[in-house]
Amino acid sequence: MNFCQRVRSVQRKNRSLVCVGLDTDLNRIPPFLRTHENPIFEFNRRIIEATKDLVCAYKLNLAFYEALAENAWYTVHQTLAAIPEEIITIGDAKRGDIGNSSEMYAKHLIDDYEFTSTTVNPYMGFDSVAPFLKNPRQGAFILAVTSNPGAKDFQYLPVRGRPLYEHVVRKARKWNTGKNCGLVVGATRPAEIQRVRKLAPELPLLIPGVGAQGGDLKAAVRYGCDDKGYLAIINVSRSVIYASQREDFADAARSATLALRNEINTYRGEFFATRR
Amino acid sequence: MNFCQRVRSVQRKNRSLVCVGLDTDLNRIPPFLRTHENPIFEFNRRIIEATKDLVCAYKLNLAFYEALAENAWYTVHQTLAAIPEEIITIGDAKRGDIGNSSEMYAKHLIDDYEFTSTTVNPYMGFDSVAPFLKNPRQGAFILAVTSNPGAKDFQYLPVRGRPLYEHVVRKARKWNTGKNCGLVVGATRPAEIQRVRKLAPELPLLIPGVGAQGGDLKAAVRYGCDDKGYLAIINVSRSVIYASQREDFADAARSATLALRNEINTYRGEFFATRR
Repeated sequence: MNFCQRVRSVQRKNRSLVCVGLDTDLNRIPPFLRTHENPIFEFNRRIIEATKDLVCAYKLNLAFYEALAENAWYTVHQTLAAIPEEIITIGDAKRGDIGNSSEMYAKHLIDDYEFTSTTVNPYMGFDSVAPFLKNPRQGAFILAVTSNPGAKDFQYLPVRGRPLYEHVVRKARKWNTGKNCGLVVGATRPAEIQRVRKLAPELPLLIPGVGAQGGDLKAAVRYGCDDKGYLAIINVSRSVIYASQREDFADAARSATLALRNEINTYRGEFFATRR
Repeated sequence: MNFCQRVRSVQRKNRSLVCVGLDTDLNRIPPFLRTHENPIFEFNRRIIEATKDLVCAYKLNLAFYEALAENAWYTVHQTLAAIPEEIITIGDAKRGDIGNSSEMYAKHLIDDYEFTSTTVNPYMGFDSVAPFLKNPRQGAFILAVTSNPGAKDFQYLPVRGRPLYEHVVRKARKWNTGKNCGLVVGATRPAEIQRVRKLAPELPLLIPGVGAQGGDLKAAVRYGCDDKGYLAIINVSRSVIYASQREDFADAARSATLALRNEINTYRGEFFATRR
């Protein structure tokens, strides 16, 4: 299966478009876990155990793991080992460098860690992205429109009558020869999700920004899905993983994930009649 | 001293615009070092020892260090500890993420590793760059025009009659309130170096791409320096650090660095009469 088929397959199996973002911060996990040998891994393990039948993906923001310094590598490795094979893993690293350096980043994220996919910054162009797209089974989500305020600085600049991000989307479609290219579009940008989906009907869209960042869930589902109600990957981090600060945090994360999955599936039922 | 002053100060002290890129690859270091406990660090240590009076900066490409997995953190840490305080260190990481994630990256690179500066990707805009500019003593080099072929995909797209990269340069100047913002412009792009220097007369320019990538050294000096013959930071990696594969590799690196420094200073003498 190519990456796009893998996304569809796990979304069908778990009836879920939910991606849980494991942006795990030592200062925010339940205090009772802090005495554990590796508190971050222990936290992740329990969240995964409690939610793995309800999600299509887990996303690890590498910024949070690099901050662990000498424990970074082990923690990411162990966390990924706790995730079932069929679930998509996203190394949210937003890398991009000249060809031989991007090769090194890709080797680390894809061959060593074995992430199913990564996020990639498009600014340096094709040779910076290509190493992340080498294996059709493994995907790359290219930043198109991000959820943060700074998105307005460059992503919307007018180029030949269209915003810059549309040029990124067009290139990404060209780079999709292995059917393993996706795009990142923030849930805080519903009009742009609609536009990107129109320009790229067949690409998986990673949609962060629901929850703490205040993105519009209903619009993310309505505009982010393909015409069958799949291929939107809707990420939530803080509002799920920090749903409780007590011993019951994993149960609370499960309840929050379940509620989100159900709300999304209600919208899918509403907008996509052909959905099974 | 703010970051810009620090660059000028060490360039004056060592009479050098040379930055040595420690893109150290286990497969390319002299074979006799491979039995060492930490071959990468030992290689870096000897290169630094042999060249530290001849350079203004060392640049560590994080792609090469992340590939070391569980040894990454220690190797970067030890390497930085071997570099004299007044020499600029550049964490070439090309990061950029939403505000709170960029904070985590900046914390890791600047507070934990204590890099003097980093490279940052501008695509996500101001809040993704700001955490790297917090402390005026520490700088950020924002990607403007990169040395790789993919630079043509987006960086030259016409926005209101000017290429995209010029908009990046204009924003960087606005973000330079702490006098700690720099720009990256590839040595393979002499016309763009000239243009960027014209638009940003007071910003340090990190210029990679001389050596293995075939950039034009004379043009990099002529167009990259400010009007006094400073603030161009000219990076060479492979052609210096792999100058020899034998026991004499550090001496060979010294000779290559010295030749480069002298060639650069000859051009500085030619183009900048006021240079001391």
